[in-house]
Amino acid sequence: MDLTEKTLSAQRVFEGRLIHVRHDQVCLPDGQKTVREVVEHPGGVAIAALTEEGQILLVDQFRYAQQRVMREVPAGKLERGEDPRKAALRELEEETGYRAEHIKLMGEFIPTGAYLEERIWMYFAWGLSFAGQHPDADEFLHVTKMDLGELVEQIMNGTIIDGKTIAMGLKLQRMLENSSAAKRKAATD
Amino acid sequence: MDLTEKTLSAQRVFEGRLIHVRHDQVCLPDGQKTVREVVEHPGGVAIAALTEEGQILLVDQFRYAQQRVMREVPAGKLERGEDPRKAALRELEEETGYRAEHIKLMGEFIPTGAYLEERIWMYFAWGLSFAGQHPDADEFLHVTKMDLGELVEQIMNGTIIDGKTIAMGLKLQRMLENSSAAKRKAATD
Repeated sequence: MDLTEKTLSAQRVFEGRLIHVRHDQVCLPDGQKTVREVVEHPGGVAIAALTEEGQILLVDQFRYAQQRVMREVPAGKLERGEDPRKAALRELEEETGYRAEHIKLMGEFIPTGAYLEERIWMYFAWGLSFAGQHPDADEFLHVTKMDLGELVEQIMNGTIIDGKTIAMGLKLQRMLENSSAAKRKAATD
Repeated sequence: MDLTEKTLSAQRVFEGRLIHVRHDQVCLPDGQKTVREVVEHPGGVAIAALTEEGQILLVDQFRYAQQRVMREVPAGKLERGEDPRKAALRELEEETGYRAEHIKLMGEFIPTGAYLEERIWMYFAWGLSFAGQHPDADEFLHVTKMDLGELVEQIMNGTIIDGKTIAMGLKLQRMLENSSAAKRKAATD
């Protein structure tokens, strides 16, 4: 069965500063009609930046919608038409003050596909040098560093709860484990 | 510095079937005023259900906001006042047809704290028996099974992009690795 839902009509019901909201009439695979709510968002980037000492850069930020301070990898939204790779380097420097010499795509992350357009491009960055922090005027954050092993422990015991930070911490740890296993194998072959 | 942002006024600007949207005036840590947009959502559950053969249950579903079919762990939203553990068992059975004898909280997952209230309770379920699928009337999905190792591979190579599925696949794999390492250690001590 084809699972596709077809748009019958689309109506913008809210235009905000960060998000817009749509209320669409759609046709389901069996021909029934229903409504779908869609939060429009330009998409974003998130960066797992590793120091030479194996520490990952994190930011503590008050997340208003969650009413609490959350510890997360640096992240931000794409400007219209912006290249995700450039956005990742820009956001990393704005939020943490660090420039990265190397950057590599770690894949896509969909926060919640049920009603959100947002997709996040995840990047791994290394070769860091400090250039000076310059966050947006309405952005207040503390930068911190943590051993990647410690981050993974805090993910596993439920202290770190931000979705992209869980995904990127575990993905990066496994990437590095796989790559050192491959190196060990190459050395013994 | 205290990072807390205080609410000055709150205005509901959209009331939908699944989500509501608020437009709040807030006071930033330095006393400046700004606006915050908040998508209200009752929260949800997601379930990593493992068969005795080490396969994980997944569902393919058209995600309208993403305009594509996505492969995800079973998930759904909480009914008002519903216990997350009960909701997880209910959603697992509705979407996949399986009942689980055991269920264990794997932690919280915040899809995107910047503007979303949603938090997802992640559960690990096992001891499965088939009871019959009964999805909601406007829910069309295909159930599939995959070796946990294969899921982790598809997460690592970027085929699986759903956030909670990335987080739960990697978290479960590491949980099982840690637990078998602890068992090996106990056996040799």
